Amino acid sequence: MRAYFIRGADRQTILELRDAAVPEPGPQQMLVRVKAAGLNRGEFMTAPPAPKAAGTDAAGEVQKLGAGVTQFRIGARVMGRCPGAFAEYALMDARETMAVPDKLSWEEAAAVPIVFLVVYDMLVAQGRLEAGGWLLVTGITSGVGVAALQTAKALGAKVIGTSGSAEKLAKLQPLGLDLALATRKPSFADAVLKATSGKGANLCVNNVGGSVFAECVRALAFEGRLAVVGYLDGVLKAEIDLDALHAKRLTLFGVSNKLRNAEQRAATVRGFAEKVLPFIAEGRIKPLIDRVYPFDELPAAKTRMEANAHVGKIVVTL
Amino acid sequence: MRAYFIRGADRQTILELRDAAVPEPGPQQMLVRVKAAGLNRGEFMTAPPAPKAAGTDAAGEVQKLGAGVTQFRIGARVMGRCPGAFAEYALMDARETMAVPDKLSWEEAAAVPIVFLVVYDMLVAQGRLEAGGWLLVTGITSGVGVAALQTAKALGAKVIGTSGSAEKLAKLQPLGLDLALATRKPSFADAVLKATSGKGANLCVNNVGGSVFAECVRALAFEGRLAVVGYLDGVLKAEIDLDALHAKRLTLFGVSNKLRNAEQRAATVRGFAEKVLPFIAEGRIKPLIDRVYPFDELPAAKTRMEANAHVGKIVVTL
Repeated sequence: MRAYFIRGADRQTILELRDAAVPEPGPQQMLVRVKAAGLNRGEFMTAPPAPKAAGTDAAGEVQKLGAGVTQFRIGARVMGRCPGAFAEYALMDARETMAVPDKLSWEEAAAVPIVFLVVYDMLVAQGRLEAGGWLLVTGITSGVGVAALQTAKALGAKVIGTSGSAEKLAKLQPLGLDLALATRKPSFADAVLKATSGKGANLCVNNVGGSVFAECVRALAFEGRLAVVGYLDGVLKAEIDLDALHAKRLTLFGVSNKLRNAEQRAATVRGFAEKVLPFIAEGRIKPLIDRVYPFDELPAAKTRMEANAHVGKIVVTL
Repeated sequence: MRAYFIRGADRQTILELRDAAVPEPGPQQMLVRVKAAGLNRGEFMTAPPAPKAAGTDAAGEVQKLGAGVTQFRIGARVMGRCPGAFAEYALMDARETMAVPDKLSWEEAAAVPIVFLVVYDMLVAQGRLEAGGWLLVTGITSGVGVAALQTAKALGAKVIGTSGSAEKLAKLQPLGLDLALATRKPSFADAVLKATSGKGANLCVNNVGGSVFAECVRALAFEGRLAVVGYLDGVLKAEIDLDALHAKRLTLFGVSNKLRNAEQRAATVRGFAEKVLPFIAEGRIKPLIDRVYPFDELPAAKTRMEANAHVGKIVVTL
């Protein structure tokens, strides 16, 4: 089969298309014929020097079942976490895999797993966002940002988003963005406080990183929560005002899956399948696709993501 | 009646004993004849220049009921949050007040409310400490620290405590302290990691402040939680490693009651009464009293607290 590999070199990452053996599903795994796969910024930011199978989530058809898999049959349309997704075939762990809702195309299904799962973790499982509550998303035009906007609106919350580009923000108005703040600088807290009658945001998803961390904290309401999810700015350290954290009873939390095992990730999949996936299945949330590239043009798709020119998910199809 | 007032002057706080009118209970309030009151460091650290009634929690006898109070009768032995507790009479909000368990003396009862309520908030409500889990407490010889140790042991957890004084730590061994680390410096994470087979603490109560914040984060386990509760060191800012927070799925949270209303505080009282107070009522947790002073010697008691010479609670009796 044909498969992309990724390696790190000179502070960048490089994709290479190679011939590779079709993998064999182990216990709890399924071999999937990949129909579409989403691009996720994380894997393009750093990679080890030794080439490894590229891609992190996908949608496709089940081809072969490993030992112990009873959740899906051969031919099932599935979507989920999928290391090595940028290939003709790849493996999914059945515990972390979901059936693709009927209304979704392969491209739309490929836009769901990683971003919507982390959004579920941030907004629902750890973030406890309530109907009527205010969500602030920095860097809202990213895949995670848009999915957070869509999920929050489906949950009945109100959403404020920041982005360096007013043009990109305009594309999110039809999705129900309540307040768009066009700024790349840490200068949005006053506007958030004003929009929320001085109370602040109940939850902040900080997609941008350390450069706006203190401003995010300043924008939070009493008992507000802050999800640390990404560093587009490359700033991994920040100063924290412990007295504000204490007095306002704030909560900060991280949501990486890097150190979680399959069972832990599967718990998130189950919660998502119960509480958010129905919105997608009913069509109330329609995954926002930025652009679809053919499999052979994955490097061009990667260039588009790195140029930060996109709004929503970039997807490749096979 | 006689009552202490506190005011701030020249970076210190001053107590003054004065004559004052016995207060009148409003709706949901009770007039209490104070029998004993605990010293809490917070109110001695800063105070406004205008004198205000001193004291924050107490134990005593109900003398008079305000409108709507049905939970207690006149003569009941009660303990709870009690602004103006350093007086012959003071008011308690009935929603935030608990009956004193039979086995407790007035002095012991006065050692319970503020510290054990914040410990419940940190260890149970927000901290989710489980039996078998590891708790790290910096500055463990304080009132909050000792109550955290006692509560954690009653919950079946294991406890590591730091203090600048090996002598003080020795006094906590009979309470079941699993590992005592005599250090005032940020140099305890390696010992915590070693004691926990490299995993780290599931919960850290940082009583000391910003000077050991980064070390606390380093000592946390995967999905570990960090309660920000005090600043004995006066360091209110700290640098936070966002990447570690993210990857290890850490949670940081504040527990101040400063901005909470009576209903919010009452929710903590109800949780505490259900989940921790039974341990105290049964005698499994015996509040640790450092020293009891007569009411007239409150200024000397304050000096002892400020000299940081105590282990456990300092209490005055009337």
